Amino acid sequence: MTVTARSLKLTHAGALTALAAAAAKAEEIGVPQNISIVDEGGNLLAFVRTDGAKLLSRETSLSKAISAASHRQPTGRLDGAAELKLAVASGGRLTNLPGGLPIVIDGVCIGGIGVGSGTGAEDVIVARAALAAIGADDQTP
Amino acid sequence: MTVTARSLKLTHAGALTALAAAAAKAEEIGVPQNISIVDEGGNLLAFVRTDGAKLLSRETSLSKAISAASHRQPTGRLDGAAELKLAVASGGRLTNLPGGLPIVIDGVCIGGIGVGSGTGAEDVIVARAALAAIGADDQTP
Amino acid sequence: MTVTARSLKLTHAGALTALAAAAAKAEEIGVPQNISIVDEGGNLLAFVRTDGAKLLSRETSLSKAISAASHRQPTGRLDGAAELKLAVASGGRLTNLPGGLPIVIDGVCIGGIGVGSGTGAEDVIVARAALAAIGADDQTP
Amino acid sequence: MTVTARSLKLTHAGALTALAAAAAKAEEIGVPQNISIVDEGGNLLAFVRTDGAKLLSRETSLSKAISAASHRQPTGRLDGAAELKLAVASGGRLTNLPGGLPIVIDGVCIGGIGVGSGTGAEDVIVARAALAAIGADDQTP
Repeated sequence: MTVTARSLKLTHAGALTALAAAAAKAEEIGVPQNISIVDEGGNLLAFVRTDGAKLLSRETSLSKAISAASHRQPTGRLDGAAELKLAVASGGRLTNLPGGLPIVIDGVCIGGIGVGSGTGAEDVIVARAALAAIGADDQTP
Repeated sequence: MTVTARSLKLTHAGALTALAAAAAKAEEIGVPQNISIVDEGGNLLAFVRTDGAKLLSRETSLSKAISAASHRQPTGRLDGAAELKLAVASGGRLTNLPGGLPIVIDGVCIGGIGVGSGTGAEDVIVARAALAAIGADDQTP
Repeated sequence: MTVTARSLKLTHAGALTALAAAAAKAEEIGVPQNISIVDEGGNLLAFVRTDGAKLLSRETSLSKAISAASHRQPTGRLDGAAELKLAVASGGRLTNLPGGLPIVIDGVCIGGIGVGSGTGAEDVIVARAALAAIGADDQTP
Repeated sequence: MTVTARSLKLTHAGALTALAAAAAKAEEIGVPQNISIVDEGGNLLAFVRTDGAKLLSRETSLSKAISAASHRQPTGRLDGAAELKLAVASGGRLTNLPGGLPIVIDGVCIGGIGVGSGTGAEDVIVARAALAAIGADDQTP
């Protein structure tokens, strides 16, 4: 029996670097955003709401981050016919809204980032900037 | 770095004037209503439930007010295909039900009003009366 | 009737500067921390959990930040005989634990910072570093 | 068997009159307040938060109003040894903090008012002004 397994985790220095890159990208494209970064356990590591971002999108950005970390894939890939059932059955957290990306380093998922307040496409652009800043894999097509 | 930005906020005198105008309009059209007024941060500033209004519409009136303040636009303008996903992913608060209007003065969104217990059209009529009473912009078509 | 009043709000640039200063102070004194910064309406603006910080102290750091912003004073100044009653009657948010400071600029309270995972004294040291970084008033004795 | 009993209920006109009187008294004594008025079922009828009132006291004002309506007596009369147990066992709503008064007309309790943001004594002064404005019985000593 093997009792333990090696793991990787995202440091707060890494999370803050990703956060700053995402906030800079949001300003660059002129779209205020809520940016949530969670660890592999879905717990919040870092967050910022930029000036003018929609208040309620804080919660959606968090749902996106947790969903991406949980499923280790970008949000938006759930079966459309099942996504609302999955959302409700998961207590509202599992979302298929675009804007959530897993944070994968060396093939290991160590968390997720979720962005919310723009269009889905804008949210993804901002999330990808965060991944690039810390050398994470980008699984978006 | 700029640490602060100038802002405007809705006074309670303004909120009570808007509330009274909405309640008067509800009586005028013979439709009991729940009327919620929130500040820019989505926190309740003023509320009334008029005689005979539906009890559970208190919560929907609040969600409408918060949604309008958060998104700085009337409720009902979300993409129909995404609205339920957004509602669930935001913990239930973000609603696309008509009857929520942002409170915009001099181009600045300082809160939201949400009305619930009538039809969507009746709710909007009552909310607009509140905006008119305080000289707020009316963004409804 | 005056419908609006002038106000100030904390920018995300200011919040991120405060957050970085707090995280740096936490590292300097060797105490992992959760750091929450909220706006005047008690809504989260910025957050970080540094490596090794206690997971459940995220929630206490948030309660401290909201309590300081709400009451516009450092946490820990409530009447000891009433503090638990106040905590329970406010749904758990109002806390008297040390580590929450209001963010006051030019005499205006524009938010709050809450720090949690160390001792109360350590939490206050980290929160004060955040205030100093953005030139906010420091009301601690 | 008697299936029904006559009852009295507070109108929204009455609630708004009480609310306005309370807000005026708060301004007169220079203490910003949260004022909640609930019906006999503990459901919110009317609310205002005056400029500068503590944000978290909205929730305590509501707990006070519901407690006064439920127990048909001013808050603050529970046995001190039991009050925290009662608060917790009631889901946090039953509070012994001063500032909640039942609304009693012709000997019938038709609701409650709760005031929060000042000292307990200030809260009671504001609540009493509301009762006086609608001719409700004042049970405070």
